Amino acid sequence: MINRQILFLLFFLPFIGISQSEDEKQLKEIYTTSLTNGESYNWLSYLSNQIGGRLSGSFNAEQAVNYTKAELDSLGLDRVWLQPVMVPKWTRGIKEFSYLENAPGETTNLDICALGGSVATPSGGLKASVIEVKGIEELEALGEEKIKGKIVFFNRPMQADLIQTFEAYGGCVDQRYSGAAEAAKYGAVGVMVRSMNLRLDNYPHTGSMSYGDLPVEKRIPAAAISTNGAEMLSTVLALNKDVKLYFRQTCKVFPDVQSYNVIGEIKGSEFPNEIITVGGHLDSWDLGDGSHDDGAGCVQSMEVLRLLKETGYKPKRTIRVVLFMNEENGLRGATKYAEVAKEKGEYHVFALESDAGGFTPRGFSFDCDEANFAQITSWKSLFKPYLIHYFEQGGSGADVGPLKGNGTVLAGLRPDSQRYFDHHHAENDTFEHVNKRELELGAATMASLVYLIDKYGTVQASNIKG
Amino acid sequence: MINRQILFLLFFLPFIGISQSEDEKQLKEIYTTSLTNGESYNWLSYLSNQIGGRLSGSFNAEQAVNYTKAELDSLGLDRVWLQPVMVPKWTRGIKEFSYLENAPGETTNLDICALGGSVATPSGGLKASVIEVKGIEELEALGEEKIKGKIVFFNRPMQADLIQTFEAYGGCVDQRYSGAAEAAKYGAVGVMVRSMNLRLDNYPHTGSMSYGDLPVEKRIPAAAISTNGAEMLSTVLALNKDVKLYFRQTCKVFPDVQSYNVIGEIKGSEFPNEIITVGGHLDSWDLGDGSHDDGAGCVQSMEVLRLLKETGYKPKRTIRVVLFMNEENGLRGATKYAEVAKEKGEYHVFALESDAGGFTPRGFSFDCDEANFAQITSWKSLFKPYLIHYFEQGGSGADVGPLKGNGTVLAGLRPDSQRYFDHHHAENDTFEHVNKRELELGAATMASLVYLIDKYGTVQASNIKG
Repeated sequence: MINRQILFLLFFLPFIGISQSEDEKQLKEIYTTSLTNGESYNWLSYLSNQIGGRLSGSFNAEQAVNYTKAELDSLGLDRVWLQPVMVPKWTRGIKEFSYLENAPGETTNLDICALGGSVATPSGGLKASVIEVKGIEELEALGEEKIKGKIVFFNRPMQADLIQTFEAYGGCVDQRYSGAAEAAKYGAVGVMVRSMNLRLDNYPHTGSMSYGDLPVEKRIPAAAISTNGAEMLSTVLALNKDVKLYFRQTCKVFPDVQSYNVIGEIKGSEFPNEIITVGGHLDSWDLGDGSHDDGAGCVQSMEVLRLLKETGYKPKRTIRVVLFMNEENGLRGATKYAEVAKEKGEYHVFALESDAGGFTPRGFSFDCDEANFAQITSWKSLFKPYLIHYFEQGGSGADVGPLKGNGTVLAGLRPDSQRYFDHHHAENDTFEHVNKRELELGAATMASLVYLIDKYGTVQASNIKG
Repeated sequence: MINRQILFLLFFLPFIGISQSEDEKQLKEIYTTSLTNGESYNWLSYLSNQIGGRLSGSFNAEQAVNYTKAELDSLGLDRVWLQPVMVPKWTRGIKEFSYLENAPGETTNLDICALGGSVATPSGGLKASVIEVKGIEELEALGEEKIKGKIVFFNRPMQADLIQTFEAYGGCVDQRYSGAAEAAKYGAVGVMVRSMNLRLDNYPHTGSMSYGDLPVEKRIPAAAISTNGAEMLSTVLALNKDVKLYFRQTCKVFPDVQSYNVIGEIKGSEFPNEIITVGGHLDSWDLGDGSHDDGAGCVQSMEVLRLLKETGYKPKRTIRVVLFMNEENGLRGATKYAEVAKEKGEYHVFALESDAGGFTPRGFSFDCDEANFAQITSWKSLFKPYLIHYFEQGGSGADVGPLKGNGTVLAGLRPDSQRYFDHHHAENDTFEHVNKRELELGAATMASLVYLIDKYGTVQASNIKG
């Protein structure tokens, strides 16, 4: 028995040693290339500064499709293509306008923006009394009597003591998404939602909302108000219940238009039918230039393939970058991608999304079984030199979500989240707020994980082959 | 034997359980208070926006002493005092001016600033040919023949592939600190140093330099040039060796002046003679407002004491905040503090510095023995909910360094370092580049460690008592 153990060690130890140092070397090369000879920041500069905000169905979104397709074409991948998908088209119209009227003629301007998907106000705007609530659940208690004819002001702030700001977002976003549909049931004429922002400032933050199954004629306009504006409105309301709120917005829904997911791939040398997908979403909201949400994720995903090529790594499995269209207000690109993959019987072993901003990466969240999670966490020490420490089970990303099932391991990059909601969906989500090194570290972190998954496979993949 | 083990477990387990959850509860309270009811950001706003850059010996530095003393006074600590210390006084003079002269009359302006401690140029400025080097070690090979009468241009960039940017800084800063003293030995007439900045931009970064034992009449003026300027100068030099560089600066050294360390403490209830010191440095360079370096560290250190009081914690040991004067160009405050501590026979069990910017905290670096390091890392899991993962042995901080010896555990807060050198010692080290939550998380992380050290003591402290 002892002899066999010794034989085992003598036989395998050198390989374990070599393999470990090969992985260390490959990760080092990936990080060094990203930090000293990266393309992600240049790509983001073009996407943000030359194109700008890329709302689905807009001219900019189509420019972004063409630009990223051309850049992927230039990388010498095995295949680059556009995957057609019909997307919704909603336009903001002319700049929204809002004021408080404390007494006739005594007004104060407020910073607002229409929520994505909202209807317009009447063309002359809408003026009404305001009722402030902290959440949807208060509506029932107030009832139609107290709500009818009024603008409902949803003012529950993001919870500042949650360390992961996405949790704080998750605890508030129902106000934005469903507030109008719920308030309309009680006869509200409009909805004003406190921006999903942890900071006090003057930027209103847009984002998607839905009327659910509310009939068209019952739909009421919904807007976001900046956090400073929300504080002011709340303060004024406490002093004067009769204050009126005016707002005007001219947003509009058009028929669906043709758009595309942008896809490129390196064919796997050993297991070409095992697909590893890495992606972000190419569309963005229209107020800023979508640098953090999600230009960063797109250029990082493109950079993953470029880094693997640049470091001379030949993948065993097919590595695919997907720039999903229409994550923000429809998820049509992600749905289409998963649909086509199913039709074609494609086998995705792994899908990784970056859609949490271009900030310093901390690690990943995994939606997978215990066996795969155990394998992945066994690589944790390889990431230690890069200060990547966060490996947890949890969610992945909206765009890779539809690939769930058949043992596909899903993951999301988890960057530092403290500053994300300062910029999210607002006009200050712009290029100058992305730090080049932080962006590049994210790309390298993603490429490193993709390399390891490619080299060692996932657990189910091995079982299927075995 | 088994019975004794069971008895042991029955007796101690409940206490272990209570103690653990007490610690968890205390950390949670500290973080929540910092994030929802913190003072650090308000203090920093005053220090940065109402006072501004605080170079030792300046009016602003004295304002900062008075302001922070008054704020500590208002916290209801057991004692607040000023510790006198003489500090150097160097002034920048009128704004520096520099240009490249490609041919007579064909000039391009460059962004430069004098290095701290440098002498002035002649009053009409200095114009000379330039010799570019990548480091001090090249000077000897070039020799007096190639250097005499020229301006030496030190152009070794920070190494971008180092993940911890302070390492990259450490690998470059000799050019700034000693470049002039070394170049003068070979007859150089001036020195221009590439700014210690990982980014390409137009900000020159100042910082301390020393002439060592060079006689006064041999001292040559030294300035920093922005990274963009360095790239341009290097490119032009490659095309035209005869290009001339002009610069003018009017900086000046004055006699030492009186200043102060600002100190406050909460007296320990059980071991008042065991001192835990937490601090940052109150002085800063003059170009920006010193928000990251080191306004952040000062307000975080003040906040540590406030958070302990606010959460109702009564320290067993004496907890002291020290705002050190003159870290940037003399370390006189730190030296004085350690000197006085020694004279009084004070026993410092622990000293923690925050002087790496107000960015998201990642953990700490410890300068201590294995036994203390083992005790501290045993607390690591308590910090996991706050994404604090970095506990390593290494350096601590310049200001707590002089306390080394007698088993004092030294530590430095280690925030995310990616953006630090974008701002360090430059005019864009300003308040708007500090994120409120990131600053507050740093203060809470420091307070949490101070709480644990206070509660459990250090290993030597226990031995001494035991």
